[in-house]
Amino acid sequence: MIILQADLICVGNELLTGLIENSNAGFLSRSLWAAGITVRETCVVADNEKAIREALDRALKDSDIVILTGGLGPTDDDLTREAVASALDRPLINDGKSLEKLQAFFAQRGLSMPANNCKQAQLIEGGRTLENSRGTAPGMILEHRGRVIVLLPGPPNEMQPLFKRQVLPELAAAARGRVTVVKTLKCIGIGESMLEEKIKAVGKWDLPAISYVARGYEVHLQIKGSGEQAEAAAAVAEAERRLRSALGIHIYGSDDDTLAGRVAELFTNEGLTLATAESCSGGLLADLITDVPGSSSFYKGGLITYRPDVKTGLLGLDPELLEREGEVSASTAEAMAEAARQIFKADLGAAITGLAGPAGDSSGLPIGLVYAAVAGPEKKECKKMNLGGGRRAIKERAAQVTLDMLRKKVRSMC
Amino acid sequence: MIILQADLICVGNELLTGLIENSNAGFLSRSLWAAGITVRETCVVADNEKAIREALDRALKDSDIVILTGGLGPTDDDLTREAVASALDRPLINDGKSLEKLQAFFAQRGLSMPANNCKQAQLIEGGRTLENSRGTAPGMILEHRGRVIVLLPGPPNEMQPLFKRQVLPELAAAARGRVTVVKTLKCIGIGESMLEEKIKAVGKWDLPAISYVARGYEVHLQIKGSGEQAEAAAAVAEAERRLRSALGIHIYGSDDDTLAGRVAELFTNEGLTLATAESCSGGLLADLITDVPGSSSFYKGGLITYRPDVKTGLLGLDPELLEREGEVSASTAEAMAEAARQIFKADLGAAITGLAGPAGDSSGLPIGLVYAAVAGPEKKECKKMNLGGGRRAIKERAAQVTLDMLRKKVRSMC
Repeated sequence: MIILQADLICVGNELLTGLIENSNAGFLSRSLWAAGITVRETCVVADNEKAIREALDRALKDSDIVILTGGLGPTDDDLTREAVASALDRPLINDGKSLEKLQAFFAQRGLSMPANNCKQAQLIEGGRTLENSRGTAPGMILEHRGRVIVLLPGPPNEMQPLFKRQVLPELAAAARGRVTVVKTLKCIGIGESMLEEKIKAVGKWDLPAISYVARGYEVHLQIKGSGEQAEAAAAVAEAERRLRSALGIHIYGSDDDTLAGRVAELFTNEGLTLATAESCSGGLLADLITDVPGSSSFYKGGLITYRPDVKTGLLGLDPELLEREGEVSASTAEAMAEAARQIFKADLGAAITGLAGPAGDSSGLPIGLVYAAVAGPEKKECKKMNLGGGRRAIKERAAQVTLDMLRKKVRSMC
Repeated sequence: MIILQADLICVGNELLTGLIENSNAGFLSRSLWAAGITVRETCVVADNEKAIREALDRALKDSDIVILTGGLGPTDDDLTREAVASALDRPLINDGKSLEKLQAFFAQRGLSMPANNCKQAQLIEGGRTLENSRGTAPGMILEHRGRVIVLLPGPPNEMQPLFKRQVLPELAAAARGRVTVVKTLKCIGIGESMLEEKIKAVGKWDLPAISYVARGYEVHLQIKGSGEQAEAAAAVAEAERRLRSALGIHIYGSDDDTLAGRVAELFTNEGLTLATAESCSGGLLADLITDVPGSSSFYKGGLITYRPDVKTGLLGLDPELLEREGEVSASTAEAMAEAARQIFKADLGAAITGLAGPAGDSSGLPIGLVYAAVAGPEKKECKKMNLGGGRRAIKERAAQVTLDMLRKKVRSMC
C-alpha cells in the first residue's frame, strides 16, 4: 500500500501580516486528505525568492508531492515561478499557447494586455500548463526526481476549480489502493449537543468515526472510513443509513449540497414557483436562491420593501394592518408573503421582516426580532426569531430559516 | 533600529487534515504585525516530536521570536513541551504552583483530576509559566541564546486572551521605539498591472514599500512605513498623497471602507435616494447596499425581476422594447433603472440585466454578458460587461460595477 505524502507552501506577504486569511491551506489539506494523501507540513513564506527556494528544498526532501500557491501574478513581487525554476535549475521558457490564451482573456474583456502580464505565460522547462479559466495566472505541474511539484494561483476562486479538475484526479490516482471515503451530512435546525444526544441514542457505535463541524447556522456531520475502496464505502454507507434514520428531516443534504440548492431542487421537482418579499434581509434571500444555477425556472421574482410606504404602495398591504400590528409583526410577515405570491402569480410566497440593527426604530422592539413567513395556496406559516450577532449575522440567519421553512413546506406538499 | 522577526509553528494533526481551520496563525500574525514585529514564516507540523524539533531548529536560526501553538494537552500525542525541551537540551521540571492550579481547576468543576493532566504542570527549566484562565494547558515563555520562545495552548479561545495579556505587551516592549504604520488604499475599476504602471509613472519611488492585494474585483494598495512614530507616519502620508494624485477616482476609500459603505455615505451626504431593479444579479446589489447600517435612510427598495412577464408587468417595461432589443440589452437595462426610480419615487435608479449562466437562454447571447445602468433625474448611463468566472463571480462583478457607477454618478452630482 502506497501512502503518498504532500507538503504545501503558501506564498504571500499578505498572509504573513494576517491581512488575508489563508484559506488555501485548509482547502488543499481537506481535499488531499479525502483522496488518501497525507499532508506532512504546510508553511507560509514571504514573496521572496530565497524563502520560497528554501521551503521547496525542505519539502522535496521529505514529500512526494509539493504544492505551492500564490506568487503567480504579473507584478514584480510575484516570484514563485522564478524561485521554483531556480531551485530546480531549469530555465523558464515562453509558452506560446498560454500567451495566446492570455491575450484572448484580455481581448474578450475589451482590454489590451499590459506588458508585464507576459511573464504569466512562462513555463518552467519540462512542466505542463494548467489552464486557469477564471484568471490570468495559469498553474503548472512538473516532475522532478520522482517528486511532483504543482504551482497554483493564489485567489481561492481560481485555485479551487483548477485544482479539483486538473490536479486532484491525477494525484488521487497515484494514491490508489488506499482510500479515505468521506461523506458529509448537512443538518439544520438542530444544535450540536442535541445532535450528539440523538446520535448516541442510536445505540453502540462501532461504525466509522463521525465528527461535528459547526458551519454558520448548520452542523455538518463528517463520516470517515479508511481502507480498501469497497470496505470503506460500505462502512460509510451503513453509518449514513443509521444517521439518516436517527435525524430525519434535520438532514437537508450531503457533501456539496447547499440549503438553497436543495430548496431549488424541491421546487423544480414539484413544478412549483416562488416569489419573495424582503424587508430587513434586504435581498439576501433572493441572492441565495438565485445563486443556484437554473433558479430562473422556479423563482419568479422578489421585492425589497425597505420602507412602510413601499409596503402599502407596491406590496399593497393594508395601512391599518401596518398601523395596528406594526411593520415587524407576524401579521405583516404573513401579509407580505401572500402579497408576493399574488403579485408575481407564484405558488408560494416567502417574506422576512425584522430589525437587523444596529440602530432600532421608533417601535421600541428589540434588535434581532425577525418574523419569517411562507404563504401557500391554502395556508400561511410564520416563525418568530430573536437573533444576535450583528446586522449581517441577523440577515443570514433570517434568510436560512426562511429557506428551511420553504424546504419543509414543499416537502409537506409532495 | 531593532527589527524583530518572528516565526510561528502551529502543531496539530487536525490542522493538517484541514478539519479545523488554522485561525491561530492569522490571529498571531495580525497581532504581531500591528506591534511592529515581522512574521518571517509560519508553518503547521504534525503531533510528532521530530517534526516539531526540526521546525524549531529552523526558526531559531533566523528569527528573534518563535511562537508555538498547540500540543500542550494532557494526552500522549501532545508533544510540544517534550519536543522543545529536547531541542534546547533542557530538562522538564515539575511546577508545584501550576499543579495546584490544575487541581483547583478540576475541583471547581466538581471533578477529580485525571493522572495524565499532571504533565501539563511541567515546565522547561529556565522557563516561566503563562497562566491559562480558560483551560488546563498553561503556556510558557523562555529565553534561549538571545531568542524568545513562547508555547501557547491550541484552542483559540484559550490562546488569544493569554497571548494578548501576558505575551504581546512584553514582545511589543522589546520592539519599542519602532512602529509600523500601515494605510490601505482601496481601488476599483483598474487592474493590478495597470495600477503598477500608473504608480511607476509617478517617478522614482523612495517612499515606503507598497504592496498590491487583489481582493475580488478590487485591488488594495498597502503602504507600510516603519521606524520612529512621527517619521513613519509622515512617510506613509506622503506616499498616500502621491498615490491619490496618480490614481484619482480609482481610489474609492481606505482601510475599513467598503464600496457599498462609500456609496451609502455619498447618498446620505447628498440627501439622495436610491431604488434598484435586478435581473441576473438576483438581489445581490440590494443585499450589499442593505449590509450598510443605516441604509434604510436612503435606500427605498428594489425589485428582482427574473422573468420577462415580470419586467413588462410589475416594472411596466414596453413589451415591444423587450421584443426588439431583448431582455439582455442596454435599452432594457436603462428602462429597468428608470422604472425602479419611478416606482419607488427615488432620485436614482440602478439596474442589472445579463446572463449569469451556466446555461444560456434562447437569445444565443454569451454567458457573462451583463448590462448595468444608472438612471438619474436628467440622464441615463449604461455599461456593458463581458464577465467570466462562474455564476457567483458574474453576479458579484455586476453588483460591484453597478455600485461603482453609482459612486461616480453621485460624485458628479455633488
